Amino acid sequence: MNMCDLIVKKKRGGALEKEEIDWMIRAFTDGEIPDYQMSAMMMAVCFVGMTDEETKNLTLAMVNSGDMLDLSEVRGIKVDKHSTGGVGDKTSLVLTPLVASLGVPVAKMSGRGLGHTGGTIDKLESFTGFSTSLTTEQFIHNVNTIHIAIAGQTADLAPADKKLYALRDVTGTVDQMSLIASSIMSKKLASGADAIVLDVKTGDGAFMKDADDARELAKKMVNIGKLCGRDVTAVISDMDQPLGYAVGNVLEVREAIDTLRGHGPEDLRELALCLGSYMTVKSGKANDVEEARSLLEDSLESGKAFHVFKEFIQAQGGDPEEAEHPERLLSARFQEEVFSPEEGYVSDIHTEEIGRICLLLGGGRETKESEINLAVGIVLHKKKGDAIKKGEALAVIHADDRALLEQAKERLIRAYTFVRQKPRREPLIKEII
Amino acid sequence: MNMCDLIVKKKRGGALEKEEIDWMIRAFTDGEIPDYQMSAMMMAVCFVGMTDEETKNLTLAMVNSGDMLDLSEVRGIKVDKHSTGGVGDKTSLVLTPLVASLGVPVAKMSGRGLGHTGGTIDKLESFTGFSTSLTTEQFIHNVNTIHIAIAGQTADLAPADKKLYALRDVTGTVDQMSLIASSIMSKKLASGADAIVLDVKTGDGAFMKDADDARELAKKMVNIGKLCGRDVTAVISDMDQPLGYAVGNVLEVREAIDTLRGHGPEDLRELALCLGSYMTVKSGKANDVEEARSLLEDSLESGKAFHVFKEFIQAQGGDPEEAEHPERLLSARFQEEVFSPEEGYVSDIHTEEIGRICLLLGGGRETKESEINLAVGIVLHKKKGDAIKKGEALAVIHADDRALLEQAKERLIRAYTFVRQKPRREPLIKEII
Repeated sequence: MNMCDLIVKKKRGGALEKEEIDWMIRAFTDGEIPDYQMSAMMMAVCFVGMTDEETKNLTLAMVNSGDMLDLSEVRGIKVDKHSTGGVGDKTSLVLTPLVASLGVPVAKMSGRGLGHTGGTIDKLESFTGFSTSLTTEQFIHNVNTIHIAIAGQTADLAPADKKLYALRDVTGTVDQMSLIASSIMSKKLASGADAIVLDVKTGDGAFMKDADDARELAKKMVNIGKLCGRDVTAVISDMDQPLGYAVGNVLEVREAIDTLRGHGPEDLRELALCLGSYMTVKSGKANDVEEARSLLEDSLESGKAFHVFKEFIQAQGGDPEEAEHPERLLSARFQEEVFSPEEGYVSDIHTEEIGRICLLLGGGRETKESEINLAVGIVLHKKKGDAIKKGEALAVIHADDRALLEQAKERLIRAYTFVRQKPRREPLIKEII
Repeated sequence: MNMCDLIVKKKRGGALEKEEIDWMIRAFTDGEIPDYQMSAMMMAVCFVGMTDEETKNLTLAMVNSGDMLDLSEVRGIKVDKHSTGGVGDKTSLVLTPLVASLGVPVAKMSGRGLGHTGGTIDKLESFTGFSTSLTTEQFIHNVNTIHIAIAGQTADLAPADKKLYALRDVTGTVDQMSLIASSIMSKKLASGADAIVLDVKTGDGAFMKDADDARELAKKMVNIGKLCGRDVTAVISDMDQPLGYAVGNVLEVREAIDTLRGHGPEDLRELALCLGSYMTVKSGKANDVEEARSLLEDSLESGKAFHVFKEFIQAQGGDPEEAEHPERLLSARFQEEVFSPEEGYVSDIHTEEIGRICLLLGGGRETKESEINLAVGIVLHKKKGDAIKKGEALAVIHADDRALLEQAKERLIRAYTFVRQKPRREPLIKEII
């Protein structure tokens, strides 16, 4: 096979055969196909697109490019969850112990990744001693006993995706739906999930700014799952404002603990219950989402979910006392309020900018080598639709650097838009696919 | 500037600014922009296209990427000629001494290139002792005395084009009109031409199979010339059958000599007169193409053009006696006729296949390292519209290898199509732009 011929075929609007995609991904992973040919192919795909069949074949070729996680020793139906990412998205911290408390096995491999705040692993490392370096035996033992384990990614899962994504990132070819869908799904399939619940976020703080794009991506991912024999549901959720109030690692952990204790923000609780219901049904622990939801609500109210969270922290070397007393977690030197310059209602929050302010404060990673400052971030006091008086606090900035604090305050004010009339509320859950 | 941003701009349908193109080409030539970004850009250009302004700026950026030939010491207006290439295209061998015989300065840098037969330089090397390795002084001296010199390309002309073309060749991005036009024009402009006559060929034996594509390419090149302040005319000529009868280096030289002596094939003579007329007018040696044509015809008939050809061969170390007696030039071991299996008229000649047969015999270059066998090739006896009897000779194959000869004969027969009714003749010159 000849890569130049395949590029020309795609450029002219053709669909690549399974054998062609398999060969292409294998040869690319092995370094036989140079980057300059693959980037031309990716650009042609951006213009021509890929059929469902091609997208499935690309996904499977990437799954087969490396190791597959063997979770056969984990008892029960493994249901994984994936979020396309957003600002203040600490859902996993609530969701995973919550479903584990019903006996749903949570066997999660998590990466750190780049972003405005850290990933789930970074956030969990707010707990003194907490470690995600588990042996396979420990990992499986924990899942089989307390139903939850979260480990850092050690296996070489979907290396083709890793290489391809790195190339797409620098050649202007990241925003193609089939490529995004196959990238996400290849990692999930390689992690050994039997079923997957996807949280596809849309809005200013999401990768998919546009609701139609989010829907298209969700459909593509569900379809890949179907074609690969996995049970996949996608929830399209709002990211036109941060989820909850806290943005920043420790701050988000505290908010997650509040939610597990039954008094967190309504949107975070709602999203965890929604995603959790589908996970619970898929794992066979409930017959339908209504039953699942009621079981999950009970678990939150009874403290069972929080109990599992503490067991989980302890099982991975952390101090559960810090979960009982989250005020003991790391704090930033400065905590200053930002005051509203206007009176009225909050009509908009430039959510991506809130994420960038967190990054500015040191709470995220700009490059793979960046060190995260877990303590810094923003806690909003006002969200969309809230009434505000002039001089009332919009948010509190947590910072370790005075100059950055001042910049953050100034930018935060500008991220808010106010109106005189109370605006309509957007629903959190937009669609289930 | 950031290459990824420029790729995204082009991908979204934008036009690149002059500063952006200048930076991109400079950084690419210097190796600062990696091939994988440039190939993604080229693929985006294939889908989005480039404006005239962008095409001009790309051309000039490539001209400025290397040396410019300084022909200021050459007296008179330098008019260059370029052909987009075809099968049996020995036009330059006739045209250059022909216009030189009127005092039009011909200062030509020629490459060898890849192709079904050799380039002009390869063909000229059929003469014992002929050399294209001239010092700049010799080169300019020859042009100023006998009005003609043809040298191999030594200067580093438009290195960006060379690098970019090599990349396009392996990434499926060769067939974009603006890219083709800027590639050709950058080399011509860097060679110091004041004016340029382009021979844009169209038909089965040409790169542009389609007449509309040829017209588009011609318009783009003329337009680049206009925007760069050069006087450019494009002649669109037929390449739906070989030009003349001979295909193969020595065979083509013999046919060119015949033509210079006034008894060559009509189409070759006509094309040389047409292109030559425009060159003569552009150089100021005639007031209009009619006057120029009449002067050129006189020069052919009087033997002046052939005299200049012999002077030229001698001035570059060749033996002019071989021009007087072209039968003394290298000959192939086998010369065998191919007979027609049918009676009727020739309706079609698969011209590209005739070129490939010449390549098969060893008459062309498959890779830059290939050695050309100058003696081999094909001399057609029948062209489109000619009547043919069953068993009459279609062509003579000149070969040095018996097995290849047999293959060539078989393929040659299949390259011809016959009909019962005499077909209509297509005009040689399709359009002047």
